[in-house]
Amino acid sequence: MVCRNRSFAQHKSDYLFYEIAQKKEHLQKQEPRAKLINLGIGDTTEPLCLPVTAGLVKQAEALGTRGGYRGYPSSFGDKKLRDTIAQKLYQGNVCADDIFISDGAKCDVGRLQHLFGPDTTIAIQDPSYPVYEHTSYLSGKAGRVDRLQMDPENNFFPKLTAADVIYICSPNNPTGVAYNREQLKQLVDFCKKNGSILIFDAAYFSYIRGDDFPRSIYEIEGAQEVAIEINSFSKVAGFTGIRVGWSVVPQTLCFDDGSSVQADWKKIVTTFFNGVSHLSQAAAMAALSDEGLQCAKEQCDYYLNNCRLLRDFFLERKFRVFGGVHAPYLWIDLDGKKSWEIFDYLLQKAHIITTPGVGFGAAGEGYLRISGFCSRLDVTSAIQRMSATSL
Amino acid sequence: MVCRNRSFAQHKSDYLFYEIAQKKEHLQKQEPRAKLINLGIGDTTEPLCLPVTAGLVKQAEALGTRGGYRGYPSSFGDKKLRDTIAQKLYQGNVCADDIFISDGAKCDVGRLQHLFGPDTTIAIQDPSYPVYEHTSYLSGKAGRVDRLQMDPENNFFPKLTAADVIYICSPNNPTGVAYNREQLKQLVDFCKKNGSILIFDAAYFSYIRGDDFPRSIYEIEGAQEVAIEINSFSKVAGFTGIRVGWSVVPQTLCFDDGSSVQADWKKIVTTFFNGVSHLSQAAAMAALSDEGLQCAKEQCDYYLNNCRLLRDFFLERKFRVFGGVHAPYLWIDLDGKKSWEIFDYLLQKAHIITTPGVGFGAAGEGYLRISGFCSRLDVTSAIQRMSATSL
Repeated sequence: MVCRNRSFAQHKSDYLFYEIAQKKEHLQKQEPRAKLINLGIGDTTEPLCLPVTAGLVKQAEALGTRGGYRGYPSSFGDKKLRDTIAQKLYQGNVCADDIFISDGAKCDVGRLQHLFGPDTTIAIQDPSYPVYEHTSYLSGKAGRVDRLQMDPENNFFPKLTAADVIYICSPNNPTGVAYNREQLKQLVDFCKKNGSILIFDAAYFSYIRGDDFPRSIYEIEGAQEVAIEINSFSKVAGFTGIRVGWSVVPQTLCFDDGSSVQADWKKIVTTFFNGVSHLSQAAAMAALSDEGLQCAKEQCDYYLNNCRLLRDFFLERKFRVFGGVHAPYLWIDLDGKKSWEIFDYLLQKAHIITTPGVGFGAAGEGYLRISGFCSRLDVTSAIQRMSATSL
Repeated sequence: MVCRNRSFAQHKSDYLFYEIAQKKEHLQKQEPRAKLINLGIGDTTEPLCLPVTAGLVKQAEALGTRGGYRGYPSSFGDKKLRDTIAQKLYQGNVCADDIFISDGAKCDVGRLQHLFGPDTTIAIQDPSYPVYEHTSYLSGKAGRVDRLQMDPENNFFPKLTAADVIYICSPNNPTGVAYNREQLKQLVDFCKKNGSILIFDAAYFSYIRGDDFPRSIYEIEGAQEVAIEINSFSKVAGFTGIRVGWSVVPQTLCFDDGSSVQADWKKIVTTFFNGVSHLSQAAAMAALSDEGLQCAKEQCDYYLNNCRLLRDFFLERKFRVFGGVHAPYLWIDLDGKKSWEIFDYLLQKAHIITTPGVGFGAAGEGYLRISGFCSRLDVTSAIQRMSATSL
């Protein structure tokens, strides 16, 4: 019989959000009439804006005509979409040929693992989005993952170590902070000096307000030689259910033998992937129209305002609160209490779903992540309910 | 600096269809006015049918409303879609919980590699869809892939060898044949006896006509204990640009330590994937309505009729021709000539793109794959053009 993949046998923990979903289901069975409020998973709640639905309808109708029908999408994405991203989101800092359209940042995090052999050493932030670690483990790099400690006093910027591949997320999930220009320069210089490849997750770039915080790693000089950037429309335009993102793999990025990282990435994309639905790409094009970008900004502002209200509540209750200003997440210091304890408490007492900080790594113990992705009504109800607890 | 993944350094060949695209581009540069006819890649050309576009428009509009908006799709797919596939396509032979919705069979072929560690031995048909081999190679199993010889005299049924994982495709790409009930029983029994896991690619099931050829491996007794089935709406309903398929991973399938294959598959799906766009899933639901299924059948018949016309042409020219009856591909024996030679000849002389048989494996040398996925006009023009050559 076939042997089980050792990487799976060694990997015990369930995927965090799956675990939360199980707990949620359990409560719903216990209390079928409970009206749950979800401040947990970072999932958008506001409807698609008009330009996007109009773009979708137009594309759907076109696919029903002989002239407008299209079969397989390009594995790398429509040229027009790649051009538009280069122009509108990178202001020419990035070449369109270096942009690869995907079905979402998470899927690209998974596919990027193929770039690196089993001997590759990995460094991830602690806490961080669990998928960096899980995809590393399940790709046979279990013993090679180093966790970077982060200091709350230093804006949660990590203490860097010289791994082959370093994952950094800014604006950061889960701590909700964004790294400034100087910090990102330090990061790029470190990678350059140590020959590391930086995987920079910029999926929350559209929540940055003001000019002090770069929205892309390619705003930093030298990044083209060290960094891959993963990105997504999910949080920008409410596209979590549309599934479209992109990665930037610069042509200038090389392995130790001088071979091109982009050439291997193209092989991965054409072998393990088959392109993004024409509908999703049409939605992305619509989101990048002037009208679409305006709507997207308004939606991001809406979620940031949710964060502001929640932030005020926790500050009033004397919690130490991080984030929520340049990112849609709050990171609450539970003042010595355990993450799952407060998670369970809020679920049972207030029917509110949050995310236990420890789910993002051992250093997240004692924190709770609160997501601003919900309706305003949910935010005000959640604050009312939490006010009635002894939180 | 970071080492290149050894699996990539060892793997020289480009992805077949990418190579063909390069040759096509080259010709278009040479002869910008050439009107190419594509009988190469198996890509659908007929527009989406009315029920499907209506389903898409309805879903697009719903996502623009507060009540109809939905964020992240379930990683496993909508329950309703899984139920409908179980009921309408498997007539209850398969449990809905064993069905996992994907963004296409190719992507699932890639993700399935994660189930199996680097020591796993693999057997693939020669010739076969290149992605089985390429994903195996790029996942570090280069030295462990065995190629199964197939006898044209025996309907291209492979001589089986006891690998851990055996990939079989029926109706077969590229040979265009379908295996009958007895052959598939032999296959399931072989896997059972040898403890192999069968990965059964049924993506062309909807081209089977008559009852002699099973449309799913689960029509065979015992298959639930040995087989994973990968499948897709791409060729069924013209969904190559919509990106939705599914895999069946039965709960009864086990590894040697008794652990559940499905449990590991769920971990893969929740870690490396984030579900299929609500639009694509709505399109699939519409394709499974009674009206949608009727349209899908008519589209498949249309492509099969293309095959019939092309088949008649090649038979008249005294070629030995396989397939095209229960599958949308013809497999032409070139009577001693080389695959790329005839490919280049048809491209240069008739501006027709085909697929060189050798691109599917060494045993495909001397064959050409002709796809029935094109308009009737293209078929008749292609026949005219080929008639004028010395083919």
